[in-house]
Amino acid sequence: MEIHFLGTGAGVPSKQRNGSATALRFLSGQKGAWLFDCGEATQHRLLDSTLRPPMFEAIFITHMHGDHIYGLPGFLGSRSFMGGTTPLTLYGPPGIKRFITISLEASGTYLNYPLFVNEVRAGEKIETDRGAVEVVKLDHTVLSFGYRFTEPARRGRVRKEYLVKKGLPPGPLYKQLQEKKDVVTEDGTVVRWKDALEPDRPGRVISIAGDTKPSKGSRTLAENAEVLIHEGTFSENLKDHAGQFGHSTAKEAAIIARDGKAKHLILTHISPRYEKELEILREEAAREFSNISVAYDGFVYKVK
Amino acid sequence: MEIHFLGTGAGVPSKQRNGSATALRFLSGQKGAWLFDCGEATQHRLLDSTLRPPMFEAIFITHMHGDHIYGLPGFLGSRSFMGGTTPLTLYGPPGIKRFITISLEASGTYLNYPLFVNEVRAGEKIETDRGAVEVVKLDHTVLSFGYRFTEPARRGRVRKEYLVKKGLPPGPLYKQLQEKKDVVTEDGTVVRWKDALEPDRPGRVISIAGDTKPSKGSRTLAENAEVLIHEGTFSENLKDHAGQFGHSTAKEAAIIARDGKAKHLILTHISPRYEKELEILREEAAREFSNISVAYDGFVYKVK
Ligand SMILES: [Zn+2]
Ligand SMILES: [Zn+2]
Repeated sequence: MEIHFLGTGAGVPSKQRNGSATALRFLSGQKGAWLFDCGEATQHRLLDSTLRPPMFEAIFITHMHGDHIYGLPGFLGSRSFMGGTTPLTLYGPPGIKRFITISLEASGTYLNYPLFVNEVRAGEKIETDRGAVEVVKLDHTVLSFGYRFTEPARRGRVRKEYLVKKGLPPGPLYKQLQEKKDVVTEDGTVVRWKDALEPDRPGRVISIAGDTKPSKGSRTLAENAEVLIHEGTFSENLKDHAGQFGHSTAKEAAIIARDGKAKHLILTHISPRYEKELEILREEAAREFSNISVAYDGFVYKVK
Repeated sequence: MEIHFLGTGAGVPSKQRNGSATALRFLSGQKGAWLFDCGEATQHRLLDSTLRPPMFEAIFITHMHGDHIYGLPGFLGSRSFMGGTTPLTLYGPPGIKRFITISLEASGTYLNYPLFVNEVRAGEKIETDRGAVEVVKLDHTVLSFGYRFTEPARRGRVRKEYLVKKGLPPGPLYKQLQEKKDVVTEDGTVVRWKDALEPDRPGRVISIAGDTKPSKGSRTLAENAEVLIHEGTFSENLKDHAGQFGHSTAKEAAIIARDGKAKHLILTHISPRYEKELEILREEAAREFSNISVAYDGFVYKVK
């Protein structure tokens, strides 16, 4: 998987940072991508990336603020115009359906693909063929969600040492074992897949938070996440201001990642006032948690 | 006046050309600007210009297609966020009010300035302190307007030769004459302003067409216009296609400008397919009418 940061700013777009949009790109198995939030000009940012609107299978909206949704009508229309015919499913807070419907209707936009719009509730678990997504309630000035995505459990690794001892060198039979089928070696020995495979590995967790101040929800998102994508809108000297407007400081995000034992924290939703002093955010966060990236528009993070 | 071309593309935004937006900037008298159409990411294009959302006094929407209106909610919100407190008036076709209202409502956007939204009808004449704007019906796949803006008549020029002969050399008294006040020279001669000024000059006309195929309306817009801004979406080999989708070719626009005795034609709303062969459009148009510019994003035209 790759995570593409398309818009990493907060509030009004600047030359450096656009309104929120983050894409999760699936590289193994069937190709495709998901989009989290869609600020105005997200489709423009895609022009500078390897992603195109028709690739997207699903969109998840964290909350209804303009810098997270105003790019939706254009994205949806362009996906059709650019030849997208596969279905698209959109998840978001109540109100999203009306916004989409009125926008497309007003502009006389007809989509050449099926669009499913689902207004979700906190606690809801969305099951997809790419894994499950839990809708987590956060604490912002308006209803705001985080999405906790868990890959399906992955097959255990082949226990090579054991198999070689059994007289089974690496070869095509390993694939059968991985597919949970017993095999018979040339000398007639039966090898059980249960003995040949390590236990299933739990799927990785990628959590994408919407705008929020530190909350129970953000801690839920952080829990054992492979990657936590969380806002770090302000620095510590604006902590009160951050809280008042339902935002987190970079340090607060780092504490949440650390306490939840997340493996990696990516800070996004950066206030334009830090463009020339991003290091302040990074340093304040790094004192609490070492595995941090500060996102920028165009940043691509490869999930290990 | 200056005309700023913020978005000169058609349909889907490309790296070169954004969705439609044209700004008319007033340089003499009170400063300010008007916006014609507001495609997605118009506020982003403004970041590369000398214009800022709070400067705008009025917005005119030609028609409801997405590439002409999807930037409105973001523009309106940012105008407030960036400190705009002066009133803003928006004119557009029926449906524009609902689109704005629902978009701002959905995103919980509160504006710190009075916004007046007027749904206009063809033939309507809007009177403003900057001049009059006539709403002209065009011929597109949906209801589409052009806006014909006429400056107030300008005072006649001072007849310098006559005044010098009368013993009145250039000086502060000229200003009084221009303000239509009689003056008395040092030797007691009375000079009447009516004799001292040339007749009032009619105000210049700037016409901005929405999407249209050649039509009565586009001809009305062209009539004696100082500047006609008109779409030239396609070249002649796609003339049928253009007509079918309610568009004009560059040549058709040139004929309209020529027949209407417009002084200058600026072609905009260029299909992305011509990015590498813009000269085709220019040449086909130039055979009919010589005074042509092909707009590009960032082009600023100074009205003489
Ligand atoms: Zn927000
Ligand atoms: Zn159109």
